This record gives sequence, structure tokens and C-alpha cells, in this order.
Amino acid sequence: MSEKSPADNFPAGYEPSKVWTWEKGNGGQFANINRPIAGPTHEKVLPVGEHPLQLYSLGTPNGVKVTIMLEELLAAGHKGAEYDAWLIKIGEGDQFGSGFVEVNPNSKIPALMDHAPKSGGEPLRVFESASILVYLAEKFGAFLPTDPRTRTETLNWLFWQMGSAPFLGGGFGHFYAYAPMKIKYAIDRYAMEVKRQMDVLNRHLANNEFMAGSEYTIADMAIWPWYGRLALKDAYNDAGDFLSVDEYEHVQRWTKQIDRRPAVRRGRMVNRTSGDPSEQLHERHDASDFDTKTQDKIAIA
Amino acid sequence: MSEKSPADNFPAGYEPSKVWTWEKGNGGQFANINRPIAGPTHEKVLPVGEHPLQLYSLGTPNGVKVTIMLEELLAAGHKGAEYDAWLIKIGEGDQFGSGFVEVNPNSKIPALMDHAPKSGGEPLRVFESASILVYLAEKFGAFLPTDPRTRTETLNWLFWQMGSAPFLGGGFGHFYAYAPMKIKYAIDRYAMEVKRQMDVLNRHLANNEFMAGSEYTIADMAIWPWYGRLALKDAYNDAGDFLSVDEYEHVQRWTKQIDRRPAVRRGRMVNRTSGDPSEQLHERHDASDFDTKTQDKIAIA
Repeated sequence: MSEKSPADNFPAGYEPSKVWTWEKGNGGQFANINRPIAGPTHEKVLPVGEHPLQLYSLGTPNGVKVTIMLEELLAAGHKGAEYDAWLIKIGEGDQFGSGFVEVNPNSKIPALMDHAPKSGGEPLRVFESASILVYLAEKFGAFLPTDPRTRTETLNWLFWQMGSAPFLGGGFGHFYAYAPMKIKYAIDRYAMEVKRQMDVLNRHLANNEFMAGSEYTIADMAIWPWYGRLALKDAYNDAGDFLSVDEYEHVQRWTKQIDRRPAVRRGRMVNRTSGDPSEQLHERHDASDFDTKTQDKIAIA
Repeated sequence: MSEKSPADNFPAGYEPSKVWTWEKGNGGQFANINRPIAGPTHEKVLPVGEHPLQLYSLGTPNGVKVTIMLEELLAAGHKGAEYDAWLIKIGEGDQFGSGFVEVNPNSKIPALMDHAPKSGGEPLRVFESASILVYLAEKFGAFLPTDPRTRTETLNWLFWQMGSAPFLGGGFGHFYAYAPMKIKYAIDRYAMEVKRQMDVLNRHLANNEFMAGSEYTIADMAIWPWYGRLALKDAYNDAGDFLSVDEYEHVQRWTKQIDRRPAVRRGRMVNRTSGDPSEQLHERHDASDFDTKTQDKIAIA
């Protein structure tokens, strides 16, 4: 489709081969965990704790969606949402262990096993962060409205998040912060799309307290860890300034409103392995595990 | 994060500015429809036909998911799934008309209005292709199993598709076929990920007839237009050879099995504006609209 000559390519003169082959070590900061094949690389049984819900995750935006949901469920009195959160070190290849691949054949966090599914029988696997949110919402009857109109709007925005965030994380974040060189075309491409997405949210939140209207739902829990974190300038180095996130005033209002929720403050600590050590809880097996951390940061209001 | 000097960047010496600004006309083949802002650009009321379901779409993979579902519902006897499919010409900016933005504030096809929602009341908007699939599946009680175990597996794979395909379409397809120059780093990055995704599917389909097991579901309808089309070498010029898609034998088996379904053959004709003219039905308002096309291609077996 290109009308330009190979001299304009990068590197100059580059032309794709007829058949792509894998050159190891060419992938930037996360090159060691990216492969062109799926499946396990080693045998490894996953640990199982005492609660019915076993979460295998890491404190990335996709991981945080689920720990926020679980903490919100517990805060709302759903005692059955007690969970064990185990750390999956993706930099060390834990996601390629045989036990993890059985829970999520896509080798991505988060992955959940429910050892006491409503349907009875064998433990049930749930993978993809938004699938886990829907599963938990339906299991406990919370944060996914049953009114058909609000439910549909919640799912509209939940799916919007799943289809949009790859342009933020895998696109913009990668080329702006992690790729081994700065490629102007790619940075411009994804910066434009992320700004458009922020404007979509901003216009919607100008007229809605939460994504699905007046109710806080799993759509907020899915969108906040990605777009709220960007609005808080807590993503991809100085990307918040680069993308002028302060101008999205309604996203800012919504972001800060959610950021103040105690369950959100707890949820984002779970499986977190970077940042302030007082905000990292590498594994979570009991509500009291938070007590070892700075209490005033996570106190229930 | 980069340890390399600006001399290694592309173009050499490039360094991102402190604040990103929009340079028009820098976006490759689809530059004219990409913007860093959301919202309508012009007033335009959407047409409304006689059926309760009004689809505003185009025959891209995301559009085809929904027309396959609607044709499958009709083939299964759900007469309430009769629909009008209107063409949204994204190259001409139809998605930025005020009426379309009211249905989908994200300005992407497909978008659906249900003028006879089960809940009664005003017409109800549904956007994001997978949200439309779930909505229709629940409205008609079809193609989304009610058994909790199979239902969860269906949703796992449905969400997998939504989070994965942006790396195929917005990533690989863009840099391989549409970007104004060939960037080796980007092509390698996305080729590797798409091959990994194909291998995820291949391993799963080695042991499962369909994505959720023995039942054909909305997960198949969501994945087929993206990954089946790639397996058929009907995507991004010669990308099928570049990615050696013939080696994914179980994806090939599943792809061809679904390709033979009469409803799939009809669904992929709707709102299609490229390829063989006999396979293009720009708008669909009645089942008889297919009769004007080559009958043997779409005959119900």
C-alpha cells in the first residue's frame, strides 16, 4: 500500500521478508517475555490458599481492575469474596508455567480460579480482566446493574475499555516509554488516539457521574486503572504532560472521586511491586494483611 | 527508558516534544478519519427503517461479527431479529455525524439501536461489537450458553478477542499494510504478537470443536472475522504468507467449518463495499435482499 520507496523505511532500505522469522532480543524493555508461540515453557503447579477465590495476578492496570472489584465486594459486605492473591512475576516468566497456562491459555494476568462455583463441580477458570469482572459481578449480584438499560450501558463501556486500552498500553505506552528507540510516526499515531479516547470519556463524564450514569459499576473499575492512572500522571513517565491530561476536566473529576474510595486504595496495593514500598502488598491472603501497611492510607472512611 | 541516543531514533535526532500537538496528514491511509478529539463534526440524523433493530455499520471484521449474529439468529428461527443494516462510510466521516455519535459516542462501527427493547420505553443504544453480540444473545436467548461453566468460557474468549484484535488490526495490519512507510521494529513487534495469538487459538482448537467447546457461540462469531479471515489469507495483502498461517492447522479446520455456514456467508456480504461485487450487499432491509445476489453462494443448505 505504501507509495514510498524502501529508502523512506526504517531502517532505510528495509523491506519485509516474504515470511517473517523470529529474531530474539529485538523487542524493547519487555522483549524477554514476548514470544511468537503460546503454551507452557515449564512445569509449575500453582499455589492454592484457603479461600474459594484464587487470584493469580500482578499490580498492573489489568490486575488492579480485579483487586479493586474484590475489595469493593468485601467493603459492600459480600463475605464470599474473600480471596488469595498470588504474585505472578511476568518478568520472570511465571505466566508460562504449566499451572498458569491451564487457568489462562493466553499467559496474561489476571487469572482467577473459583473453587466454589455456583454451578458446583470442579473449580472454574476465568481469564481476561473484564471477563473476571462480569463473573464476579454476576456471582455476587453487585456492580453490574440488572435494569436492562443501565446494564447495557455498563457493558458498552466495559467492552469499550477492552478494545481501547491496547492503543494506550500496547500502543502509546510502548512506543513512548518502553521501545528501544523513539519512532515519531508511532508516537504520533498513538498519542492522537489516546487523546481522542480521553476526549470520549471527558464528554461522557461531563453529563454522567459514572460511566453508566448515576451508579458506580464494573465499567468504572475497568476504565479507572488505565485512564484514571493516566489522568493522575501516574503512567509512562511524563506522558501525562505530553498528552495534556489536565485539560480533560471531567475525567479529572471522576478520577479523583474514584481515587478516594477506600476499596480502590486497597485494591491497587495488591500484587503491586513498584513505587512506594508502603503501598505494596505483594500477596494478599486476608483482610488483615493490609494492617501491616500504613494504616491511615487505607483506613475505611 | 531508552538507553539509546536520539541519533538512533526515527527520524534520526527526533525527540518527543514536551507537549504533543496535532500535525494533520501524518497518519497513513486512514489519516483523514483519525482525530485527537471526539464528538460530532456535523449535524446528521440517522435513517430508521421498519424493523425494531437498526444497525449502522460497515463490512469490516467488527461489523461482520454482528451481521453474522443477526443472520444466525434468523436462520435459527428468531423472527424478531429482522433488521435494517445501514451503510456508514467511515472514509467519508459518517461516523462523526451527530446522529451516529448519539448511538456510539466513540464514533466507531458497528452501532445498534433497539427500538423495541425488552424493558420497554425509549429505543436503547448498544455499541462496541462484542457488547452488541451479548445484547442480542441475551435478547433472543441464543449463542451464549446458560450453563455457567460454558457461559464463562464463552465470555473468556469473547473478551480475549476484544483485547487481542487491536494488536492484529490496529497494530500489525496498520504497520504491515497501511502505514506510509515500513518500520521494521513495529512490524516485528506485531507480527510476533499475532503469531502468538494464532498459536493460542491453535492449541485451544486442537481440543475443542468451537471456542467454548462443543457449542457454536458468540465467541466464534467474534473471533472468526478477525483470525479466520487472516487464516483464509483474506487480510492485509499477503500477510497470510508473511505470518505462515497455514501452519495453524486447527485454526484452519475451525475457520473452514465456520466459513461454510450459510448465515456466515450472508452476514459477511452485508455492508460490504470491497471485493467481488456479487458478494456486496451495501444495505440490507429484508431477507429477500440477498436474492439479488448470486443465489447459489448464499443458499441455505
